[in-house]
Amino acid sequence: MIDHRTLRVALLGAGSVGSQVARLLLEHADELEERAGARLELAGIAVRNIDAQRDVDLPRELLTTDASELIVGSDIVIELMGGIEPAKSYILEALNSGADVVTGNKALLATHGAEIFDAADQVGASVSYEAAVAGAIPIVRPLKDSLAGDRVKRIFGIVNGSTNYILDRMDRDGLPADEAAQIASDLGFLEADPTLDVEGYDAAQKAAIIASLAFHTRVSIDDVHREGITGVTAEMIESASRAGYVIKLLAVCERLDATGDGHEESISVRVYPALISREHPLASVHGGNNAVFVEAEAAGSLMFYGAGAGGIETASAVMGDVVSAARRHIAGGVGVGESPRGQLPVAPIGRIITSYQIRLEVSDEPGVLEAIASILTEGGVSAAAVEQTAIPSDGQAARAQLVIGTHRAREEALAATVERLAASDVVIRVASVLRVEGE
Amino acid sequence: MIDHRTLRVALLGAGSVGSQVARLLLEHADELEERAGARLELAGIAVRNIDAQRDVDLPRELLTTDASELIVGSDIVIELMGGIEPAKSYILEALNSGADVVTGNKALLATHGAEIFDAADQVGASVSYEAAVAGAIPIVRPLKDSLAGDRVKRIFGIVNGSTNYILDRMDRDGLPADEAAQIASDLGFLEADPTLDVEGYDAAQKAAIIASLAFHTRVSIDDVHREGITGVTAEMIESASRAGYVIKLLAVCERLDATGDGHEESISVRVYPALISREHPLASVHGGNNAVFVEAEAAGSLMFYGAGAGGIETASAVMGDVVSAARRHIAGGVGVGESPRGQLPVAPIGRIITSYQIRLEVSDEPGVLEAIASILTEGGVSAAAVEQTAIPSDGQAARAQLVIGTHRAREEALAATVERLAASDVVIRVASVLRVEGE
Repeated sequence: MIDHRTLRVALLGAGSVGSQVARLLLEHADELEERAGARLELAGIAVRNIDAQRDVDLPRELLTTDASELIVGSDIVIELMGGIEPAKSYILEALNSGADVVTGNKALLATHGAEIFDAADQVGASVSYEAAVAGAIPIVRPLKDSLAGDRVKRIFGIVNGSTNYILDRMDRDGLPADEAAQIASDLGFLEADPTLDVEGYDAAQKAAIIASLAFHTRVSIDDVHREGITGVTAEMIESASRAGYVIKLLAVCERLDATGDGHEESISVRVYPALISREHPLASVHGGNNAVFVEAEAAGSLMFYGAGAGGIETASAVMGDVVSAARRHIAGGVGVGESPRGQLPVAPIGRIITSYQIRLEVSDEPGVLEAIASILTEGGVSAAAVEQTAIPSDGQAARAQLVIGTHRAREEALAATVERLAASDVVIRVASVLRVEGE
Repeated sequence: MIDHRTLRVALLGAGSVGSQVARLLLEHADELEERAGARLELAGIAVRNIDAQRDVDLPRELLTTDASELIVGSDIVIELMGGIEPAKSYILEALNSGADVVTGNKALLATHGAEIFDAADQVGASVSYEAAVAGAIPIVRPLKDSLAGDRVKRIFGIVNGSTNYILDRMDRDGLPADEAAQIASDLGFLEADPTLDVEGYDAAQKAAIIASLAFHTRVSIDDVHREGITGVTAEMIESASRAGYVIKLLAVCERLDATGDGHEESISVRVYPALISREHPLASVHGGNNAVFVEAEAAGSLMFYGAGAGGIETASAVMGDVVSAARRHIAGGVGVGESPRGQLPVAPIGRIITSYQIRLEVSDEPGVLEAIASILTEGGVSAAAVEQTAIPSDGQAARAQLVIGTHRAREEALAATVERLAASDVVIRVASVLRVEGE
């Protein structure tokens, strides 16, 4: 059903993703016309600086600094500028002028998603954002459409490539954290502001978007419990490895059942470095790759794997959204919009239930193990495995490292127990506490 | 944007998938209404025998033996009867009466897909079939929508769970082929007619559907080169393993570039047991799981992993399609239909280029290796690795096994070379020739 209409496409931003999107629109125009059912005419590219250096040579006559003028009369507006403003204003302008919007702006959606989706619903336009979550990996569409008749229980995944690269080099090549981070930076893996990656902000933005989709609930970045990887040391990786685990920065979005003691059904959205079994498919996600593991009631376990970033890879996700938006334009009718929203509350981190690996430095003397075991038992935390290693004493009092793998426990109970451990006479220090996921 | 319409849903078939779909429609009616934007009313379930035993207790008043009557006036018809007729006639009836169709019928689509999609396009209705390819794994939608703006180069994957189970048990537990097959059968993994699985018919049907989608070309089951796993022996698995490979039954759909010697651009669609590196993500797909690896020009490598079969898992895929069809009904407009078709020819198997592992039984005497090397060289096939092992002689003339890993070669050259090897005096027999994929 080819309709020989021409759709006017406006592109905002010509960075590493935007310039590739422009190239695909120009070079693959015939193939795209067949796929979309209409000619996709790149009407112009709004940039801040027309003379800036770009990855791809773009026709100069398409470049403009006036985004608003470009938006008027466009059928599809692709926003790849990033940042909150002016991106947000342009998207609202586009929606109000009747255009469908395609964006890869995770920071914007994780903070102002509700406002943008409401604006789209009001005018019956669509906002697509496959590129905002895990680069080229289709995850938004599977959650929105393929699993629309199922019930998602849990999603956890590696959604930030640069931190995965760092942890992977530490794990596989034994590099110290700073050296691995330096290599990641040299390779261009890290954002200009590396704290976005290493402190988990980027992953937290994606987690907010994924949780919103999966649980039909509005989740913003402020709802996400976030811990980065800067505290992860070679010792933690080694202790994890000896117990059969690897450390990954995970984004976890989980449905928590209502409990007998008055807690209603809720969701937990969190980002932290966690232990995952070496047997788990996520453990073999190496380098800068991303993967998202979905557990649904009917579908069981699904995994989506691929390149989580990169200009050309992310451009593929943008183009999929553009073709879909074009088809919708031609088919007519109103946009489906975001699914109506459930109103599940977001639970505090203390409510989650998982298992843990606790590393303690203790006095190496008789009775220590008993003292610690009794603190655990009092706290309602039960040990599944304990490994004790003597620490070279350098003439000081004898010390040992104790690595305790726990059974599943509620985080608030675990945290209280760790406090009591820290206060105990036999414990010199609590070296680290990490959660275990995927079991 | 909730429209409090009610959509009439007709279900044809109440086998392992159909009965789960009925259960989800009935038990999750409220949640589905929210997701779809309309009430999905299960109007009836057409079955052959009302009194048959079923996995799920279904309300007797919904069961009918008159599918045609049920179809009239339905908005969405879900066909899960399987087989060619009467499924095909019912689907055409449904489309002609204005219903959208959701089906999991791979045999039907792989043989009569063109006729069904044409019928849908003519009336502006949609035919969705996520459940037809890899059970719960979203693969149809990613190919159709997410990668619509990209160019797929190659797809290869494990799309039949029972043969993967058999090969996995042979590889990991050293079971002989017949024992592994018996266990698969006992566990209910094999179809009633096991040749559908072990001879690769099921995988070939799925390959035809995947290739049609990926290359926007009509591919039917007759276009698929098919070899099953019945010839795979413990010796092949052992030789593969020693060289760092595992044997998987792969469905491969590949774009072949035009060549200088007059061959135009074409596609190859094939199913056979092939070697794949133990380092490749597909190598760690164990048991009855499925996984599909996609290589696209912009997106790079993507993998989709999950349960490839199972009533409840496949029902999830069906329900995703049902909710999408419902949304489309409410949004109005015509169905997007299948993308307009490219017309790439399907190349014969001789045109593919890959590497191979050849196992020969040869006379163990001086000069044999030179003789074989010269046959390879003449044939334009170059060896990358050779492993020679003496075969216990039992008083007969000395023999050896020669395992040759080749560099990439065109299959027609390889086949001619293997014929010359078989005819050579020094070769007692060609024990096996397997292709290597994913390199």
